[in-house]
Amino acid sequence: MAAVLRGCRYLVGRYPKHVDFAFVSTRSMASKTQVGFIGLGNMGNPMAKNLLKHGYPVIATDVFPESCKEVQELGAQIVDNPAEVADKADRIITMLPSSPNVIDAYTGPNGILKKVKKGSLLIDSSTIDPAVSKEMAAAAEKMGAVFMDAPVSGGVGAASSGKLTFMVGGAEEEFTAAKELLSCMGANVVYCGQVGTGQAAKICNNMLLAIGMIGTSETMNLGIRLGLDPKLLAKILNMSSGRCWSSDTYNPVPGVMEGVPSGNNYQGGFGTQLMAKDLGLAQNTATNTKTPVPLGSLAHQIYRMMCARGYANKDFSSVFQFLREEEGQ
Amino acid sequence: MAAVLRGCRYLVGRYPKHVDFAFVSTRSMASKTQVGFIGLGNMGNPMAKNLLKHGYPVIATDVFPESCKEVQELGAQIVDNPAEVADKADRIITMLPSSPNVIDAYTGPNGILKKVKKGSLLIDSSTIDPAVSKEMAAAAEKMGAVFMDAPVSGGVGAASSGKLTFMVGGAEEEFTAAKELLSCMGANVVYCGQVGTGQAAKICNNMLLAIGMIGTSETMNLGIRLGLDPKLLAKILNMSSGRCWSSDTYNPVPGVMEGVPSGNNYQGGFGTQLMAKDLGLAQNTATNTKTPVPLGSLAHQIYRMMCARGYANKDFSSVFQFLREEEGQ
Amino acid sequence: MAAVLRGCRYLVGRYPKHVDFAFVSTRSMASKTQVGFIGLGNMGNPMAKNLLKHGYPVIATDVFPESCKEVQELGAQIVDNPAEVADKADRIITMLPSSPNVIDAYTGPNGILKKVKKGSLLIDSSTIDPAVSKEMAAAAEKMGAVFMDAPVSGGVGAASSGKLTFMVGGAEEEFTAAKELLSCMGANVVYCGQVGTGQAAKICNNMLLAIGMIGTSETMNLGIRLGLDPKLLAKILNMSSGRCWSSDTYNPVPGVMEGVPSGNNYQGGFGTQLMAKDLGLAQNTATNTKTPVPLGSLAHQIYRMMCARGYANKDFSSVFQFLREEEGQ
Amino acid sequence: MAAVLRGCRYLVGRYPKHVDFAFVSTRSMASKTQVGFIGLGNMGNPMAKNLLKHGYPVIATDVFPESCKEVQELGAQIVDNPAEVADKADRIITMLPSSPNVIDAYTGPNGILKKVKKGSLLIDSSTIDPAVSKEMAAAAEKMGAVFMDAPVSGGVGAASSGKLTFMVGGAEEEFTAAKELLSCMGANVVYCGQVGTGQAAKICNNMLLAIGMIGTSETMNLGIRLGLDPKLLAKILNMSSGRCWSSDTYNPVPGVMEGVPSGNNYQGGFGTQLMAKDLGLAQNTATNTKTPVPLGSLAHQIYRMMCARGYANKDFSSVFQFLREEEGQ
Repeated sequence: MAAVLRGCRYLVGRYPKHVDFAFVSTRSMASKTQVGFIGLGNMGNPMAKNLLKHGYPVIATDVFPESCKEVQELGAQIVDNPAEVADKADRIITMLPSSPNVIDAYTGPNGILKKVKKGSLLIDSSTIDPAVSKEMAAAAEKMGAVFMDAPVSGGVGAASSGKLTFMVGGAEEEFTAAKELLSCMGANVVYCGQVGTGQAAKICNNMLLAIGMIGTSETMNLGIRLGLDPKLLAKILNMSSGRCWSSDTYNPVPGVMEGVPSGNNYQGGFGTQLMAKDLGLAQNTATNTKTPVPLGSLAHQIYRMMCARGYANKDFSSVFQFLREEEGQ
Repeated sequence: MAAVLRGCRYLVGRYPKHVDFAFVSTRSMASKTQVGFIGLGNMGNPMAKNLLKHGYPVIATDVFPESCKEVQELGAQIVDNPAEVADKADRIITMLPSSPNVIDAYTGPNGILKKVKKGSLLIDSSTIDPAVSKEMAAAAEKMGAVFMDAPVSGGVGAASSGKLTFMVGGAEEEFTAAKELLSCMGANVVYCGQVGTGQAAKICNNMLLAIGMIGTSETMNLGIRLGLDPKLLAKILNMSSGRCWSSDTYNPVPGVMEGVPSGNNYQGGFGTQLMAKDLGLAQNTATNTKTPVPLGSLAHQIYRMMCARGYANKDFSSVFQFLREEEGQ
Repeated sequence: MAAVLRGCRYLVGRYPKHVDFAFVSTRSMASKTQVGFIGLGNMGNPMAKNLLKHGYPVIATDVFPESCKEVQELGAQIVDNPAEVADKADRIITMLPSSPNVIDAYTGPNGILKKVKKGSLLIDSSTIDPAVSKEMAAAAEKMGAVFMDAPVSGGVGAASSGKLTFMVGGAEEEFTAAKELLSCMGANVVYCGQVGTGQAAKICNNMLLAIGMIGTSETMNLGIRLGLDPKLLAKILNMSSGRCWSSDTYNPVPGVMEGVPSGNNYQGGFGTQLMAKDLGLAQNTATNTKTPVPLGSLAHQIYRMMCARGYANKDFSSVFQFLREEEGQ
Repeated sequence: MAAVLRGCRYLVGRYPKHVDFAFVSTRSMASKTQVGFIGLGNMGNPMAKNLLKHGYPVIATDVFPESCKEVQELGAQIVDNPAEVADKADRIITMLPSSPNVIDAYTGPNGILKKVKKGSLLIDSSTIDPAVSKEMAAAAEKMGAVFMDAPVSGGVGAASSGKLTFMVGGAEEEFTAAKELLSCMGANVVYCGQVGTGQAAKICNNMLLAIGMIGTSETMNLGIRLGLDPKLLAKILNMSSGRCWSSDTYNPVPGVMEGVPSGNNYQGGFGTQLMAKDLGLAQNTATNTKTPVPLGSLAHQIYRMMCARGYANKDFSSVFQFLREEEGQ
């Protein structure tokens, strides 16, 4: 019942008068009805599995058919393209690599919006330009559907264990419905504001993360060269105003901490290439909003240079290694 | 006599066997003998007062006689110059603005080393180039004295309340004696390693602090322009990997936190000019050790530009204000 | 009829055999037929006047009707929107502030492509993202028209005196026709390659210009502080490897050269805001092509900061003033 | 006779009254009397040879005896240390790698000033911190000698062919005497002002050179990725406001120009390590004079990172190669 009203409330919110309940979406009436999932890559795959574990029937698709095998074996129905997903599910999650993929999955010739049902809830967990999120939201609204951006923080490990953090932008009255689904895949689901603010929060966090990581790497390297023991230096920073996540939780210097990529030759973790992509988004939004981001901009350039020097697939904390190698080696 | 004995203990510290306790220094045995203090500025003044409060007779000097009045009224003996301090005290603390002042106070015509007693303990709490600390240590050693660098973190408030953090470099066997004095003025006294590592730790911390502060300011500004509420954005960053001291303890955006300079028009706190000075030291040590510090270097330039634009005396978190002003205003 | 024939010539250009000259376009044969002009701002106005001076009938439009008065008085026919221009002229020049304006003028509801004639030659002299130029070219090609990008270097003065430089991208076989028109407004018309390369050349030049200007300003300022006479320093740089256009032709230090904005309180010339815009384009194309541009990126940030500090409308050489102001002033 | 008077004039200039001509230096009376030369490295060796070619008897020394062989075979007298050079020659040129070497050669235990004759002319062609030049000048003045800084531009090739440019700082009345010697080794000898301004001019030029080179490399790389032909792009830049020495005389892109290191796998030319050193000097002088040099500072960091990545001994134009390598290669 609450679900019925909830659907009502949505329509009411926009067209408050003369609601004909006969036309109200049944989308979330039975919460264990089908959920669409588009994009079964490294992140999407474990996310879809977590939906299945929580009892949701999943109807999925991916441009690479082989990516669908695992979830198919676990019971998901596989269809040919996003339009078909939209034909069969009124709650859909998309998890795609970049803006053009998202644009295609929503507005392309076989895109969601070709067959989307009125009242559908479309949640995009890709990390893309907030301006694209806004465009998708506007296009969805024209079709009577609701679009929310809900990018994640946390990598493949968090996706597998259902411990992602979702940063959600969109109509506040839809947040409860979105949270119901996202909670199957994440430990934190944070409402950020209007459409695009989920992306904004994600991009902002990652820009500051990149700055903190490069800064920590420079600082640790300088301290070591000045004769400080790296563990002691990390300890001093972490009890002082230099403290940051990169120094106290994900230290880039091999041997300072256990269980982080710096202790494993920078394997695993969050790739330099992915960080460069997110910094590119940050740079684009900053340019478009005429916002000066001098350190964010330089961080972008450094990760871009690292990609050009063979670090593309190493964890982004490998900037320590990039900066420290000695002359003559 | 005390000096001779002290010198023994010092040597004993290095050759730990066959210690004849009869010869152990009385320097710290009689802990409430005179302590010299050179440099009674904004920081030195409250520090010297804390020594007096702890019952130490203080013999002090400053190039500006008027700076001596307060401690004189509290019982300190004032003399004309560092040499005279050294003539009367075998434990001396120096707290001076910059490298040239330190060089002069130690090796100048009326410097400490002109009259230093063998076995004296010389503690420099100024923030200077670690290379200068090493030079002073070598010069002191020639005179049979021990030099330690012990720069502080924490500002005038922490100095007044005796809550400074001291980062100490020098012979480890002298650390206990140094700590006895420094504990009167600080809450934390951390041993960092050989001479100069105290400075190194201080400089490293402040470089990372500057990077974190500018990064936080850029990020908050970008997020606000993208439609995020600043308090919400700070909360998201602080539960995510963008978290740093500047975001969670000293947020630069007015209204996000209470009790920080951003809430008080950037009055008080740690001045931009002082940060620019510390970043200049970081830059110099990085240049001299051929260490790349791209973000540290750009942070230095930004604080330098801020000094040129009227921000010299505002708290260093005012970089948020520097970056955010709108076109046309 | 002319349009049909012109279309033939265009096709002929691609399929060079069996050309029947009887079908060759009359577009440029009767060179003094109407030329469309869209965008009569600071630059477009004098450009359109030069077309009139060269005897071309001009049919023009601008979103601000008052911008049309001058050319109307000189004989230009004013119409309501770009579609109407396209209805009456098969050679059209657009000169607009930014990418969205160009997109609207070509593909908007009253855009050129609504009524463009087959075989029309569309030349865009705006400075925009080369990716947008490519999109416009593709859209024009669908309608049987030819699009070329032809951004200019040189400011309002060069526009008035017909001394602009045009950097032209597009089908090489159309270059002669484009050059015929552009030569009325410019002293140099350079063919750069496929569509978008005109923009690329413009953006590249301006990025290097910005780097050179900031670099010259830093260098002159440093030299002056080190005791060098600015005129002498400029002379030394200009006979050495530091030489660049900003040092030898447009020196940013007041008093070093005559007839440049630095001698006139940075009035006139090329505004900081316009430079920031071009650097934003450079940054975007670099991000999109994954090209590291560390100095270009920092130059962008510096001009962005200057805009935020009141320099938006000063000549871009005012970066010297921005960097040099003394502490305490 | 002129030479005698010239010597007089010098003393007169400083102690204008009561000159006793008996004590006047005979230094430059016979211009082909011995010239001292200290530092026979890659640059010093061909410079000393040019002095020999011009008929000057040379008395030389170097810390590496084997460096002395060539000039010894050509007739130079080799002595053990700078003090002995000063004992036998009253005009001395020093050409050393860095500030500490210069300090040692002048003020060390076997330094020039131990045996320098009153009225001697000491010319330092090393590239060092201008502050050190000033210290050396002050120390020399105490001994009655004259010190001038005269760093060079031009590499080993220019040193061999006698085509160096000397930038000279020091007492103007000594310039003629300095020029007489320096003209044997260089094509241009430029008077820059007081002591240290020769260094200042050198450092300023090289900072702007580094900025221009990195800027040109970024720009060329960006343009190529945007589809421009590199030769055409260079041509366009060189006729436009992006023009600089690095684009028109020493283009970093292989194939654009002949006879430059980019055409020879970046062999020869001016090594990245040497550029990093000069940028370190620029950074230090900027820090010490509180001058913002954002691009110069970033250029320093980039050349420092290049040294850490294996580019130390390649020509500094190899920054193009450093920036351009593709992802995945």
